[in-house]
Amino acid sequence: MKTCSFDKLLPYLERGMALGTALNIMDWDANTAAPEEASEYTAKALGILSQEAFCALINPEVKEIIGQIDEESLSDKEKAILKKLKKEYKRSEAIPAEEMREFGELCSRATRVWQKAKQDNDFSIYAPYLEKLIAYKKKFAAYAKKGEEKLYDILLDEYEESFGMKELDRFFGKLKEEIIPLLKKVSEAEEIDDSFLYQEYEIEKQKEFNHFLAEYLGFDFKRGVIAESEHPFTTSWHNHDVRITTHYYKNNLTSAILSTIHESGHALYEQGVEDDLTQTLVGEGASCAMHESQSRFYENIIGRSQEFWEPLYPKLVETFPKQLMDVPLEKFVRALNKVKADLIRTEADELTYCLHIMVRYELEKQMIEEEASVKELPELWNQKYKEYLGVVPKEEKEGILQDVHWSMGDIGYFPSYALGNAFAAQIYHTMKKELPVEELLKQGRISEITKYLREHIHRYGALKEPRQLLKELTGEEFNPDYYIQYLKEKFEKVYHL
Amino acid sequence: MKTCSFDKLLPYLERGMALGTALNIMDWDANTAAPEEASEYTAKALGILSQEAFCALINPEVKEIIGQIDEESLSDKEKAILKKLKKEYKRSEAIPAEEMREFGELCSRATRVWQKAKQDNDFSIYAPYLEKLIAYKKKFAAYAKKGEEKLYDILLDEYEESFGMKELDRFFGKLKEEIIPLLKKVSEAEEIDDSFLYQEYEIEKQKEFNHFLAEYLGFDFKRGVIAESEHPFTTSWHNHDVRITTHYYKNNLTSAILSTIHESGHALYEQGVEDDLTQTLVGEGASCAMHESQSRFYENIIGRSQEFWEPLYPKLVETFPKQLMDVPLEKFVRALNKVKADLIRTEADELTYCLHIMVRYELEKQMIEEEASVKELPELWNQKYKEYLGVVPKEEKEGILQDVHWSMGDIGYFPSYALGNAFAAQIYHTMKKELPVEELLKQGRISEITKYLREHIHRYGALKEPRQLLKELTGEEFNPDYYIQYLKEKFEKVYHL
Repeated sequence: MKTCSFDKLLPYLERGMALGTALNIMDWDANTAAPEEASEYTAKALGILSQEAFCALINPEVKEIIGQIDEESLSDKEKAILKKLKKEYKRSEAIPAEEMREFGELCSRATRVWQKAKQDNDFSIYAPYLEKLIAYKKKFAAYAKKGEEKLYDILLDEYEESFGMKELDRFFGKLKEEIIPLLKKVSEAEEIDDSFLYQEYEIEKQKEFNHFLAEYLGFDFKRGVIAESEHPFTTSWHNHDVRITTHYYKNNLTSAILSTIHESGHALYEQGVEDDLTQTLVGEGASCAMHESQSRFYENIIGRSQEFWEPLYPKLVETFPKQLMDVPLEKFVRALNKVKADLIRTEADELTYCLHIMVRYELEKQMIEEEASVKELPELWNQKYKEYLGVVPKEEKEGILQDVHWSMGDIGYFPSYALGNAFAAQIYHTMKKELPVEELLKQGRISEITKYLREHIHRYGALKEPRQLLKELTGEEFNPDYYIQYLKEKFEKVYHL
Repeated sequence: MKTCSFDKLLPYLERGMALGTALNIMDWDANTAAPEEASEYTAKALGILSQEAFCALINPEVKEIIGQIDEESLSDKEKAILKKLKKEYKRSEAIPAEEMREFGELCSRATRVWQKAKQDNDFSIYAPYLEKLIAYKKKFAAYAKKGEEKLYDILLDEYEESFGMKELDRFFGKLKEEIIPLLKKVSEAEEIDDSFLYQEYEIEKQKEFNHFLAEYLGFDFKRGVIAESEHPFTTSWHNHDVRITTHYYKNNLTSAILSTIHESGHALYEQGVEDDLTQTLVGEGASCAMHESQSRFYENIIGRSQEFWEPLYPKLVETFPKQLMDVPLEKFVRALNKVKADLIRTEADELTYCLHIMVRYELEKQMIEEEASVKELPELWNQKYKEYLGVVPKEEKEGILQDVHWSMGDIGYFPSYALGNAFAAQIYHTMKKELPVEELLKQGRISEITKYLREHIHRYGALKEPRQLLKELTGEEFNPDYYIQYLKEKFEKVYHL
């Protein structure tokens, strides 16, 4: 008999929220403020609190309550929270506590070893750790396996629910078919001159412009903070405290600008979640891919368009007159869209970005499903880069060692980035039918675009799943064709093909 | 039978440490970074974690363990930790949980009302809250009372162990006797011209100089951070992460400088605690007064001396040539020591500071021991300011409403500030016999002074009590005469009396 009211869960949920908030703040602090030698000591506190945060929701009492809740009587919000909680149980219950602990320790050691391996440009010292990580991930997936499920599908599902290999194979298959030939044509076209972006740009002035830019995009400084960190990121503890970071480079104007726009996209999503949902399990963006769809919509679809820059560019020229006085708007925007097949994912342009992800997706499939040995990975990596991007890493640190994800135990995460791009293009396709997007951008009325996204996506947090949000907004299921079409149209135009 | 090993306490102590660290970081963040509208939401997490931190150490399991520990077998460190824990139990066990919760809520409401009352310059809206706060504090003290103990002594003991009214009456009595006549003479002497300190001093340059200054004082930036906040403060989560803040004013050069020196004094103490003690209950400074003794030693005894500024002043002039070019070192140092009897404690000079504290001490005694009514307090305040400092507040916000302490439930805290000054002077008296302090300062060898303090005070954290530290360093019990003597000698010299 189901006899428990949802309210019985509240104290546990709130405790989990409180501990999660503390951990987020501590993580933010470690990345933006903490002094060099603090981490070893602070780690003791972090370790204890992480464990506590995990057990706040995963414990026998909560399990018993969950088992006794009558789902019929729940509101949509309560249902969504319960669903999320049950998923967490399913994932963690399958794994013996002891192995979970070992895995946590392995990840933290592997991340340190990866850092050193990257620094020393030596995959061999990291390889044994990666081997163990893969073994654990396969074992964990096997625990959760039902019937004919594939292990990599189980891993993928952890990050982006219900986007498995079948769908991703089709998606990346199309990319391969359409984007690689397009990239080839682009590579043969006349190179775009973007050298003016790499003059000296005073950092104080960059900061000023980037703060202005974030505000222009709608970032609410009463509910948010911008700081600096080695790698840009967004974090939030609730919809009234959302934080982004940027990294400024003296000899690169657009690195900070594009990352400010990207992170502002994430931040607008979080600031836009409804008050009623914030500080609950469904108070954040719906998924990694949906989050990336927002950040990349702002960064790429809008942020690299001429219409976006029309009202803004004069202010940028005013900020850097010496450097930009002789650069017309058209030249600036073309430079923002320069394509260059290269080695590093995080520095990739809009066109090649998904090919970087494709390499990783195929490699992960091989490690999990096809028994590729860890030893082979650097060579497999290099072959794929050669095949898809036409470039070959000279050093392991520019190749197989470039990303942190695997060392943190995240195998199956990368495809979210590519899905995010595709979600964004599908959303954009519908949005253009309902809003005069280009006109609005030209007139500096970007807030009306954000309002549209807020209405259809942001406000729901994780109350609805990505597939549902997409379907309700665009009227159809996930369809990567819009993304392919968007890329083709855009880059044929940019490169006059 | 005592059968429990101290180790049984460790998981509880570590959990308390972890939660305390999180709360400290969150508090720091709220004061230095958080956006305007965040606090209402973050407060939910803070409330839950504060409660949790309290219960981490105060709970039936820990109580049972404490009862079963064989103290004979403990190390000095373990003994000190246990003693601190027992004191915490004594304090909190006497008070019914329900009343503790009510009091917590009252404090948080009273603090908000106090803010508004100060803003509106209207004591009457705050008075009913202060009345309740006093009633609670008296009630709590009564719970802990044994035999003939006085209630105010019990409150005082909470902040500074074993410094009760008997000793404080004697201390403030001497101050009254010696300092008030001295202040009178100073007031009749020729006024010091410090107008040049209030020219325009560019904030960016002030920041640069203050960072240099902190480093010069020995603040270790690998283990610490300097940020900005409304009111300067120091906080730390362990000896490898100690943080101070400063507030810069465009038209005031020395406000930031003196607060940087003051907070650096606190920070040097915390950075100097031994690794073996940090992150334990005895891993912080020995007491409020001992902490103030360090901050005020650096700020006043050293930081306002000509010897200290001899190697530094050229750098300051170089930073602000336009403003200071025509100001010789002697004039600068005299300006730093200008005495002006005035209304606001936090802006008081070195000579009058203790008189501000004396007013508060006498008022607290009257509220707790002599049944002074809350209604009378503003008038009593004003009378005492007139009597001791010769000035009368025109508005309540410059009088009875100026300090936050009472609204937070801190009655009995103020005397620590004055004791800190007296500790500092006593320590200085001994130090001068063992170190050529003035020579060291002139030669920029301040690190040797800090080394001395580290050796005798900092490294012990709260392993030893203030009285013990003082006795071991100076060879005698607490003796306020050194402070009186120091003030007299100094200000007779400054004012050529």
